[in-house]
Amino acid sequence: MNRPIGVFDSGIGGLTVVKELIRLLPNEKIVYFGDTARVPYGIKSKQTIVKFSLENILFLLKQDVKTIVVACNTASSAALPILKRHFKIPIIGVITPGIKEAIYATRNKRIGVIATKATINSHTYERQIKRINSSIKVFNQACPLLVPLVEEGWAHQKATYDIASFYLNPFKKSKIDTLILGCTHYPLLKSVFKQILGSRVRLIDSARQVAFQIKEVLTDEGLLNNKKVGVRHIFYVSDELQQFKKVAKIFLGQDIKNLRKVNSV
Amino acid sequence: MNRPIGVFDSGIGGLTVVKELIRLLPNEKIVYFGDTARVPYGIKSKQTIVKFSLENILFLLKQDVKTIVVACNTASSAALPILKRHFKIPIIGVITPGIKEAIYATRNKRIGVIATKATINSHTYERQIKRINSSIKVFNQACPLLVPLVEEGWAHQKATYDIASFYLNPFKKSKIDTLILGCTHYPLLKSVFKQILGSRVRLIDSARQVAFQIKEVLTDEGLLNNKKVGVRHIFYVSDELQQFKKVAKIFLGQDIKNLRKVNSV
Repeated sequence: MNRPIGVFDSGIGGLTVVKELIRLLPNEKIVYFGDTARVPYGIKSKQTIVKFSLENILFLLKQDVKTIVVACNTASSAALPILKRHFKIPIIGVITPGIKEAIYATRNKRIGVIATKATINSHTYERQIKRINSSIKVFNQACPLLVPLVEEGWAHQKATYDIASFYLNPFKKSKIDTLILGCTHYPLLKSVFKQILGSRVRLIDSARQVAFQIKEVLTDEGLLNNKKVGVRHIFYVSDELQQFKKVAKIFLGQDIKNLRKVNSV
Repeated sequence: MNRPIGVFDSGIGGLTVVKELIRLLPNEKIVYFGDTARVPYGIKSKQTIVKFSLENILFLLKQDVKTIVVACNTASSAALPILKRHFKIPIIGVITPGIKEAIYATRNKRIGVIATKATINSHTYERQIKRINSSIKVFNQACPLLVPLVEEGWAHQKATYDIASFYLNPFKKSKIDTLILGCTHYPLLKSVFKQILGSRVRLIDSARQVAFQIKEVLTDEGLLNNKKVGVRHIFYVSDELQQFKKVAKIFLGQDIKNLRKVNSV
């Protein structure tokens, strides 16, 4: 099956998922779409996020993808059920894999979730965790300023530490032992979170779990590509290339090749 | 002339201009469009900002406006010449009025400009100032994190002071005596800027100058509305209403009435 895996995100954060996909499935070709002209999604309404997600999926289908990864927690929480209802192609979000790992990791059944406003307001994490284990206590915190700070490359500035402390300090009182990083930008702030919460709190970054789930789905559906022939990833964005290129390396861990601009999705 | 004045912005910042318009021209009806589904513009490319601005103007023309205010510095700097070339209706931006006031205010001919990345990268301020007076020195600083901080209502937090200091401290060395607030969000941070730069540096907020210019244009074109009959402003946004409503009051200084969502511009 030489068809590519489609991945979309509101912007650049989804590259943390692509990085794990490339590591786990080196034979697979990836087509990425980052909606950089309309980024961010996390401060917008469910209706708008659903509309954008539908358009992004239609764009990826035109690239003849065999499966689609919604590599954005905001879009996964706001739109995944609707997307799954509309399309036949397997669509995988980034919420469930992280939740499974968090439930496995917690000892005291107190889990924290940090995410964008849209994700927190959707109550997706809380509902899904409770559905699996209703005795777990979930503590939510929207962190709207962390995405711009990461996008600006401010991960290691003192102001970022102060703002993250403001968001995370309440978790000390609620005595969580596990924190779900519910936004694809947050893995870049892991060291800051560790400094604030100490090493006792386990940080759950779903990117790797997502890659495992995609491998499982492709295997089940007989869609795995077993031969490494002409693997050439393509990255599309809806805004200009330079800013994306500059920040992409931090997320992907390597230089971006084959980056193209689409004029409208 | 009972037709309304059209005003658009990438989101909520343009309301600082609306506030001054209402004060100076109480007989005029205003139709505002805030593109909250695609906000912010300031981190995006010129091409994308031009595309969005054209779409916004077409939407306002459908509302039968008699003039259009581009109440967004990013859109004014990236798109105004193109917009003026395409449309017959008078279109007024927010750059020139601020520049005129700054040139009038400066004593030592050293002017600072703070704005979004897109505005700074366009070199619009520098070029226009030099065209009027080439002996003036212009010092630019892009401040990409200030918009999200204002939108989150963090104007008076210590982290905002620290981040603003990071951006503004270089102006102390360059000994400016005048600072142009080149983004409609920045007037809400005036007290922070004053704390950092001291009261010796004059802060130029273009909103009031823009209102004067619109009065002038309407007078010249014979479009002024002299009777206060049924003045009922209408506010359109492209994303949901609640978040806009909450923050709008800070910008407008009064509650928003007649707020509506448009599904696509």
